[in-house]
Amino acid sequence: MSYVRNAWYVAGWSSEFDASLKRVVILEQAIVMYRKADGTVAALEDQCPHRLLPLSKGKLIGDDIQCGYHGMTFNCEGKCVRVPGQDNIPASAFVTNYAVREKHDIVFIWMGDADDAVEDDIFDLPQFHSDQWHAHQGDALHLKANYLNVAENLVDPAHVSFVHPTTLGNAASENVPVHVDTEGEVLVAWRWIRDAPPIGFFQKFGGFKGNVDRWHYYYLHLPCTAVIDFGSADADRNLAEESRDEGVRIFALHFLTPVNEHYTIDRWMHLRNAAVGDEDASIQMDKLFRVAFNEDKEILEAIDEQEQMVQTRKPIRLAIDKGPTVYRRRIDAMVNPDYS
Amino acid sequence: MSYVRNAWYVAGWSSEFDASLKRVVILEQAIVMYRKADGTVAALEDQCPHRLLPLSKGKLIGDDIQCGYHGMTFNCEGKCVRVPGQDNIPASAFVTNYAVREKHDIVFIWMGDADDAVEDDIFDLPQFHSDQWHAHQGDALHLKANYLNVAENLVDPAHVSFVHPTTLGNAASENVPVHVDTEGEVLVAWRWIRDAPPIGFFQKFGGFKGNVDRWHYYYLHLPCTAVIDFGSADADRNLAEESRDEGVRIFALHFLTPVNEHYTIDRWMHLRNAAVGDEDASIQMDKLFRVAFNEDKEILEAIDEQEQMVQTRKPIRLAIDKGPTVYRRRIDAMVNPDYS
Amino acid sequence: MSYVRNAWYVAGWSSEFDASLKRVVILEQAIVMYRKADGTVAALEDQCPHRLLPLSKGKLIGDDIQCGYHGMTFNCEGKCVRVPGQDNIPASAFVTNYAVREKHDIVFIWMGDADDAVEDDIFDLPQFHSDQWHAHQGDALHLKANYLNVAENLVDPAHVSFVHPTTLGNAASENVPVHVDTEGEVLVAWRWIRDAPPIGFFQKFGGFKGNVDRWHYYYLHLPCTAVIDFGSADADRNLAEESRDEGVRIFALHFLTPVNEHYTIDRWMHLRNAAVGDEDASIQMDKLFRVAFNEDKEILEAIDEQEQMVQTRKPIRLAIDKGPTVYRRRIDAMVNPDYS
Repeated sequence: MSYVRNAWYVAGWSSEFDASLKRVVILEQAIVMYRKADGTVAALEDQCPHRLLPLSKGKLIGDDIQCGYHGMTFNCEGKCVRVPGQDNIPASAFVTNYAVREKHDIVFIWMGDADDAVEDDIFDLPQFHSDQWHAHQGDALHLKANYLNVAENLVDPAHVSFVHPTTLGNAASENVPVHVDTEGEVLVAWRWIRDAPPIGFFQKFGGFKGNVDRWHYYYLHLPCTAVIDFGSADADRNLAEESRDEGVRIFALHFLTPVNEHYTIDRWMHLRNAAVGDEDASIQMDKLFRVAFNEDKEILEAIDEQEQMVQTRKPIRLAIDKGPTVYRRRIDAMVNPDYS
Repeated sequence: MSYVRNAWYVAGWSSEFDASLKRVVILEQAIVMYRKADGTVAALEDQCPHRLLPLSKGKLIGDDIQCGYHGMTFNCEGKCVRVPGQDNIPASAFVTNYAVREKHDIVFIWMGDADDAVEDDIFDLPQFHSDQWHAHQGDALHLKANYLNVAENLVDPAHVSFVHPTTLGNAASENVPVHVDTEGEVLVAWRWIRDAPPIGFFQKFGGFKGNVDRWHYYYLHLPCTAVIDFGSADADRNLAEESRDEGVRIFALHFLTPVNEHYTIDRWMHLRNAAVGDEDASIQMDKLFRVAFNEDKEILEAIDEQEQMVQTRKPIRLAIDKGPTVYRRRIDAMVNPDYS
Repeated sequence: MSYVRNAWYVAGWSSEFDASLKRVVILEQAIVMYRKADGTVAALEDQCPHRLLPLSKGKLIGDDIQCGYHGMTFNCEGKCVRVPGQDNIPASAFVTNYAVREKHDIVFIWMGDADDAVEDDIFDLPQFHSDQWHAHQGDALHLKANYLNVAENLVDPAHVSFVHPTTLGNAASENVPVHVDTEGEVLVAWRWIRDAPPIGFFQKFGGFKGNVDRWHYYYLHLPCTAVIDFGSADADRNLAEESRDEGVRIFALHFLTPVNEHYTIDRWMHLRNAAVGDEDASIQMDKLFRVAFNEDKEILEAIDEQEQMVQTRKPIRLAIDKGPTVYRRRIDAMVNPDYS
């Protein structure tokens, strides 16, 4: 399938890379990645142009990769620097070099032409830089599902009551309408559930006993990054929308990496303004998130299978689909700019 | 592939259904089935028209199914009765409803339009209603094979000597010619092996020691139900064809459920006029049938694999193929009535 | 894919065949093979022309095969000799019969029309007939790879330093140029590494301590047989190319059997002029070869997977590719003689 190439995707957490050759597949492209002597991460096409052996099957010599078949050697920019048995190096002896940046312990890769990489597009949040906030990396969730469905699920507050009834949602929110703003670069869908019992998550974190006001804001940064801002505050405080920092506030971040049409990696992490510095709390949150995100995984994988059966009519669209619908339309326009 | 849709197929034994959601796939259609409060069985398209999640991943609330993704709720007729977060229900919010009937502890489903279902076409046998006969349900045999080959095997007495030499056949029958009658609605192939040693089955059930007359009648009810009437009587009685009830007589019933082009479920059961009420005998018969039907399974799965290899000439047809040939021609005509 | 049909392929070692039915797949053709009463090996199309059941699922009766479905019986020439239940045997009731020859405990099969089989084309070597030489059969290495890539690897001395650094090669040879002769029927690529430390293989066999002259000759007999002549002699003897018999000399033979586009069996064996009659040495050599050939397997399977990813440019060709390039061009001409 076609993908948005001119964008940063997450290739992995920083901890996933060292001075060994790691093969990753992103947008159906095979890429070999490794940490260079200077500590930065390199990314090259993972295929020798000679006999197509993945370079990740070869050997790292300094910052160069020697192919494991005939010893052709490429530097970290993809330039061939040695062809054993001959002196001249053909002009076609190179591999694609990808732009890579590391930020907040996350390794981003630009999947378009390296020269077109836009530094300012790398994802960031002010909360990463604040000592009032605590950041913690979770897991890499592998889903046998198309990334478009995974992303749409992340700008869709309406599923929470039904998919996550014991963790992130409960029956109180089933009929609460969803607000959507699709004007800006970032799509947003949100709703407040006012004066209702706290969900499992905020019974555990926040220690709320009486009713609370609870919010869910779903920010979708195209093509593949989602920020879910959710939290709670005592209902009698009647918190204003813009005062969410005064409640217990959590950001769940999802970095989606499309592997191929039916495979997506969702690397998720969280930031919070409570229990700062408390790694025990982080680990307990991970556990709750794991339960919830595996609920999504079950749904999304079942849909992927079902979509592959013969279909005789078009899916119907509901009021709650505004965010997903605009998301897919924008992705289509990014992939095929002529049709937008 | 194309199937005969306007027909009853077996969705399962009655015991397979209760007040939980069960996904079945028949003729490549995904269907969710469950037992309603009134005890009858419902069958709906197993796919929410919104995001395509199988409804079987949802929740049964009374007789309604609530989708596990966004809570759209369908009643047992497939009508949408709730869309959380909006008041109006779109006209396109429905799922297909299938006609279901239960008879003799077997659940039948009509795979065509429910309004076209023909009550009288549901399979029945007078012996089901007689207390001289004992009925017993066997297994659901899963075969990686096309249902047409499985059905043809059930109107084919000639294979018995070679595929089932120790259970249902023996060398005595190898050259005995097969009679075939393809005039009526039900195809019949049969042969009598007169004055020969009893096969394993009738050594065990019937207690025959000397030579017997043995018969095999294969009745194929299109598209997918077979009745194999077989039995034995002492050879010196020289039993007439129409007096088979005077011998030890067994009906093996096969209800074929085509799942897809390469997968068929064969639910088999048996009725007999001997050892009535003796469940120990039923269990011993099951054991013998299991051996025999697994012999068929091995043959039919090997053929299915072989058929997928490149073929350079057409299979040849023999005298024994009259039943199978007419069967396939009639199925073709039912699937493509214009070509008949 | 298309294959060279008019050629002898190895169906197995002699020890693989006895009086039981063995299914093999060669060039995507299913074949049933067995040893006849007279000790020779028969090979027939492994598919009954009636219902396509593999004959290997049937029964050997004398030298005839009785199909396991309806008992059609074929003699060892593929002629039908019995159709149970009918007297006449249709003219179309036959299966293809393949020409088979056994030589040096190897079973060869001619994949073209049996009448076109060319006796003189069966592979042979004078060393098989000499008591100065010791022959020993190794394994059947199964590779998930296209046979063309496997064959090209066998006329490619340049990969040895990189793929087999501890067994068959070492760094001393990395830059030594390769000679290639593609004039004759047999393609040859070779190189001498003069006055260098012995490789692991000849430290073990030969007991060389000081520097040696080492040679590798790769002979590729089209379509699918390779002879790798390699050896060593003390460097101060300065051995002439034609005097290789005076050193420790080993022939590694590879018989490639293409199963399908992505599966090849490489049956390998060795002959040597040292440690004649010493089966312990043979077993130790097997161990070393196994290590080395599994290194090839890892490379070739990784390439096969990588080739199936979307490719946007043509692979580049290097000076070392002369042998492989001519090999593939000749195979193309043999498969499509009109295009040559």
